[in-house]
Amino acid sequence: MRKKHVGILGATGMVGQHYIRLLKDHPFFETTFLAASKESAGKSYGLALSEKGRPLDGIPTPILALQVHSIDEISLAKEQCDFVFSAVDGPIAKIYEPLYAAEGLPVISNASSYRMDPDVPLLIPEVNPDHLQILPQQQKNRGWKRGFIVAKPNCSLQSYLTPLYALHKNFGIQKIIVSTLQAVSGAGYPGVSSFDMVDNIIPYIRGEEEKSETEPLKILGKIEGFRIAPIEGISISAHCNRVAVLDGHTACVSVQFQKKPVREEILEAWRTFKGAPQELKLPSAPQRAIIYREENDRPQPRLDRNAEGGMAVTIGRLRDCNVFDYRFVALSHNALRGAASGGLLNAELLHARGYL
Amino acid sequence: MRKKHVGILGATGMVGQHYIRLLKDHPFFETTFLAASKESAGKSYGLALSEKGRPLDGIPTPILALQVHSIDEISLAKEQCDFVFSAVDGPIAKIYEPLYAAEGLPVISNASSYRMDPDVPLLIPEVNPDHLQILPQQQKNRGWKRGFIVAKPNCSLQSYLTPLYALHKNFGIQKIIVSTLQAVSGAGYPGVSSFDMVDNIIPYIRGEEEKSETEPLKILGKIEGFRIAPIEGISISAHCNRVAVLDGHTACVSVQFQKKPVREEILEAWRTFKGAPQELKLPSAPQRAIIYREENDRPQPRLDRNAEGGMAVTIGRLRDCNVFDYRFVALSHNALRGAASGGLLNAELLHARGYL
Amino acid sequence: MRKKHVGILGATGMVGQHYIRLLKDHPFFETTFLAASKESAGKSYGLALSEKGRPLDGIPTPILALQVHSIDEISLAKEQCDFVFSAVDGPIAKIYEPLYAAEGLPVISNASSYRMDPDVPLLIPEVNPDHLQILPQQQKNRGWKRGFIVAKPNCSLQSYLTPLYALHKNFGIQKIIVSTLQAVSGAGYPGVSSFDMVDNIIPYIRGEEEKSETEPLKILGKIEGFRIAPIEGISISAHCNRVAVLDGHTACVSVQFQKKPVREEILEAWRTFKGAPQELKLPSAPQRAIIYREENDRPQPRLDRNAEGGMAVTIGRLRDCNVFDYRFVALSHNALRGAASGGLLNAELLHARGYL
Amino acid sequence: MRKKHVGILGATGMVGQHYIRLLKDHPFFETTFLAASKESAGKSYGLALSEKGRPLDGIPTPILALQVHSIDEISLAKEQCDFVFSAVDGPIAKIYEPLYAAEGLPVISNASSYRMDPDVPLLIPEVNPDHLQILPQQQKNRGWKRGFIVAKPNCSLQSYLTPLYALHKNFGIQKIIVSTLQAVSGAGYPGVSSFDMVDNIIPYIRGEEEKSETEPLKILGKIEGFRIAPIEGISISAHCNRVAVLDGHTACVSVQFQKKPVREEILEAWRTFKGAPQELKLPSAPQRAIIYREENDRPQPRLDRNAEGGMAVTIGRLRDCNVFDYRFVALSHNALRGAASGGLLNAELLHARGYL
Repeated sequence: MRKKHVGILGATGMVGQHYIRLLKDHPFFETTFLAASKESAGKSYGLALSEKGRPLDGIPTPILALQVHSIDEISLAKEQCDFVFSAVDGPIAKIYEPLYAAEGLPVISNASSYRMDPDVPLLIPEVNPDHLQILPQQQKNRGWKRGFIVAKPNCSLQSYLTPLYALHKNFGIQKIIVSTLQAVSGAGYPGVSSFDMVDNIIPYIRGEEEKSETEPLKILGKIEGFRIAPIEGISISAHCNRVAVLDGHTACVSVQFQKKPVREEILEAWRTFKGAPQELKLPSAPQRAIIYREENDRPQPRLDRNAEGGMAVTIGRLRDCNVFDYRFVALSHNALRGAASGGLLNAELLHARGYL
Repeated sequence: MRKKHVGILGATGMVGQHYIRLLKDHPFFETTFLAASKESAGKSYGLALSEKGRPLDGIPTPILALQVHSIDEISLAKEQCDFVFSAVDGPIAKIYEPLYAAEGLPVISNASSYRMDPDVPLLIPEVNPDHLQILPQQQKNRGWKRGFIVAKPNCSLQSYLTPLYALHKNFGIQKIIVSTLQAVSGAGYPGVSSFDMVDNIIPYIRGEEEKSETEPLKILGKIEGFRIAPIEGISISAHCNRVAVLDGHTACVSVQFQKKPVREEILEAWRTFKGAPQELKLPSAPQRAIIYREENDRPQPRLDRNAEGGMAVTIGRLRDCNVFDYRFVALSHNALRGAASGGLLNAELLHARGYL
Repeated sequence: MRKKHVGILGATGMVGQHYIRLLKDHPFFETTFLAASKESAGKSYGLALSEKGRPLDGIPTPILALQVHSIDEISLAKEQCDFVFSAVDGPIAKIYEPLYAAEGLPVISNASSYRMDPDVPLLIPEVNPDHLQILPQQQKNRGWKRGFIVAKPNCSLQSYLTPLYALHKNFGIQKIIVSTLQAVSGAGYPGVSSFDMVDNIIPYIRGEEEKSETEPLKILGKIEGFRIAPIEGISISAHCNRVAVLDGHTACVSVQFQKKPVREEILEAWRTFKGAPQELKLPSAPQRAIIYREENDRPQPRLDRNAEGGMAVTIGRLRDCNVFDYRFVALSHNALRGAASGGLLNAELLHARGYL
Repeated sequence: MRKKHVGILGATGMVGQHYIRLLKDHPFFETTFLAASKESAGKSYGLALSEKGRPLDGIPTPILALQVHSIDEISLAKEQCDFVFSAVDGPIAKIYEPLYAAEGLPVISNASSYRMDPDVPLLIPEVNPDHLQILPQQQKNRGWKRGFIVAKPNCSLQSYLTPLYALHKNFGIQKIIVSTLQAVSGAGYPGVSSFDMVDNIIPYIRGEEEKSETEPLKILGKIEGFRIAPIEGISISAHCNRVAVLDGHTACVSVQFQKKPVREEILEAWRTFKGAPQELKLPSAPQRAIIYREENDRPQPRLDRNAEGGMAVTIGRLRDCNVFDYRFVALSHNALRGAASGGLLNAELLHARGYL
């Protein structure tokens, strides 16, 4: 069976480069089309990367020789690929993602532009795979035939939403207060100035707290008629901080349940947790979506972010809370699970379910 | 009037050295006695420091020439000083602080050994100066004449307790969930390995969460009969993290009130807050005990820790909370306000109130 | 005597802000004119700063209320000030510095554009104050009446050139191999990405090695006829590295002399070193231009960069070299001595010598 | 063929743990004996590790269950293994390495105690494999039958000695001045305090410059009669600095040749360089022992330390030197090539040559 042909919108950015590395030798997909801004268009990918400043190592040589196209060349994209990953900034995504979808290309997006649209699945394959059933409605709403948009949630919540979902299914969650310690790679490149990060933390990340508080409610929601309705009865409050860590967002979570489970029930819920990616054995799926570490000082970003190829959430320090029911610390790799690898897993689920 | 003579227990440690620097040209106190472990005893302070590894700059030369005594030489201490600062580790403090007090020397302690004893004031001069009234009871309980122990709380809570107290007085606090991002100097020297702090955070500090949760209740408590009774009706939950910051503990605070104030009332409560140190114009007192910054990305440890000589708490990001009433970020200098300077302010209050 | 009125070109940048802070309460100078790019022109300085992103604390409030002018408003500058500090980037400096000088305004520059022009003094007041005697020639060459340009050397060489000069005067230097470990503030703001500086060093800084190798030869040179001729007989080779330090450039120096001095002669040459700023007691001059530390692990950037208000060079580890004669480590504060404070000292020397 | 049985002296330390991880699934060797200090003796390895503080992830579970022996149990070691890796500190190595060798066990050492003994090979397999021929002489000198000691050089010089050797063979080297920027893992665990490494560098590492200057001369030397004689006619001067990098020592090298090659000859010498490990295809050998990167800002520790499994030296920035002939930057992984993996490669060479 021939591999699906894949286009990368925003190919010269950090996430775009990650996609290209991940697609090397992928069993279902291969990179055939690269789109970027006008400055890069017409150049070889290798040249465009070196001009933009910070090429990652490990890009396959044939891809370095591919020509970069302007993101405007949508009909060419249609000829050359079956679907696209969108790794462009919000305002660009806002304009171009619907144009690609309208042209008949499924768009698997990392951008925030359409995340909260009620007919766009905001997908964590372990949590809400059934939200994909909204796609026919989305196409109908927007007059698209084959194209659609599927979004990936913000990287900050990847650290805590999957473990909370595993508990919510069993015990019902009411209230969450979370403080995140987020890695600099979450801001892209060049992102945060080193002048701000030496001997310092920044207790603010623009827009991040809002996303951390609203996106989970949609992800935990249900399709009701023509839309995905956010869950009710859960409230979330987030403090988001930037710290001098390269990769790996850590979350300190306090949670109140409808019905307080005992500690062993929580550990059991995490231990046995499996979602669609594990059941379907998707190529990028972590074997264990959730890993619990018994040591009292884990998870740590440098030590745990690469667990299961950067796709697992690592948890530790489950303990009673004086104010809510329980507290724990959770960590995921923002630049893998929280960005390109997470988008790729979304594509693999779509592929397995026949949407691509 | 002659200055009070001061002894430093634990003179060769980080906090001990800070005391000595702070006491240079102090209007009320002067350093006359240095005590340390047996290895340092009998040596000049300069020699003892250089052998121990990491002398701070700025120790006055005459002090470098002083002889270090063993902490066992209590009767000598009694001859040479009017009171002592105790900057020794917990187990040493456990043994020696009562011995010094029994000998008639007031002990102003940074250690945790006696903090939770119901007859020992756990003092933040802006918050609970009246807890000093327990001292006669303490002396009676323990059979001490002139000596006593006054303790300083854990450095982590200095960042958030004073601003919370300013609000509690007016609006009544019920629940607090706090996550701290704590500086490496809080672990002393050598403290945390650099191997653990490069590209990393540690989501655990031994004993710190317990202290952060129980000490505030005592500090906000009242003298009831023979003891300081912890306040009731407030619950606190703390997540404590170590981050790669030199000095300055940051706290992300979510708070629930008995009666939710409007935002402007909170800002007003902080703006007008004054405690005993400000009213008494104690030499080490910050003019403003609490500083509110309007910028959306403050406080930051490197930029704000030195406000008011490292004695103020700097706050920012007051905003509504989806789960509780309000959220904010607060910061204080753990190695100044949270350690030696805080101990010195305690001594200044004791002096002003005639206890020394 | 009325203070000289001073304009700041590039007022919203990091160095420009430093100038404004330093000029607060300066005995000779006061800030009266602020110039920046067109985006900032017409706005209050406070607004312009907050829009540009990273205002320093400590800017005097009246200055925050000053209106920012476009750098094009040269005739207004002439009305409002006696001379200007230029803290703009190279290409802007290239265009505007001569325009300001032609208008009659002395330009004291931090930019590299005219550093190597043979009629422009490249000034370290302790080393080559007599190079100012070229100024009449410069004015003649360029047809300027009252205006002129005086440049400040690159920040990297401030760490090692003054101590080498103190030795060169006495013993004659032939060869220098130096490796620098440079702070991130040397790259301005936002400068180096934190993504590049976490768990990393960058062994390359564009243009820095060339400047480190050629500028010293001019500074150590002599006025010969109509030009400053670089010194002959000295060769310098530099490796420049960026490290995760906020402020303070460290240099590891190996040096070969014409005539090898004994160690004590070197220490004596440093101990007794004085230049024009010390003799003239200029307000920004360090009392000791060179400080030698005996400890075997000094200088360290965090501990030593602020010596003498950030204006001294701190040296340590003088020892024999297996290849050349001696080795040592030297450090200076790149953002103070190496930038605004160094420019201010230049202005103070010009003022003392009657050039302003 | 049965695998050789291997003992690890210093099994609970950082390097010891690395050995154990590397020996997992090794084709020639398997871990059968663990020795550590008395506090760990008698405990399971897993327990001993967790008590000592910082276990690495990835230790095979059967090894965690192995009992740790006291380093005194030499006759037991003899029963249970064919040779030992010594990863103990210098003073312990000084005592125990000869005792193990006397008992008949080859000792492959990471310690510095016997490195400079003229009958002990100081081995970099790519550089001086023939120094192993001194071993019969060593055994004769010391009255050992089957046992012997082979040492590994200091980690700092691994970054620059192999590339210099590749050039020395062809062009003859006379003078080297090198400045190193060394990672914190080089100091072991806990090693350097984070208090010293936040916003700082330390321009001194005890003993490191001496080792960096003398060990290379022995490694480049020849067996002359009964001893390895250091090479003559080469002088080396080293500045060693500690920087806030986790792994990877960077060296800024200036080199003077007997006969200056052209740039392309140098690149060719590196490109074609092969040593015994490459020719013998030893399991831990890097395919390319030396990698040259064309980018002007490489090598960087975080990006290049893991090249070829952490076993290659990565070089960049070859350029003319104003003082010597050439300059370049070189990097190797101190905790892999410079420690356990380097020791393992030594063992593999010994095995291939029939010494084990």
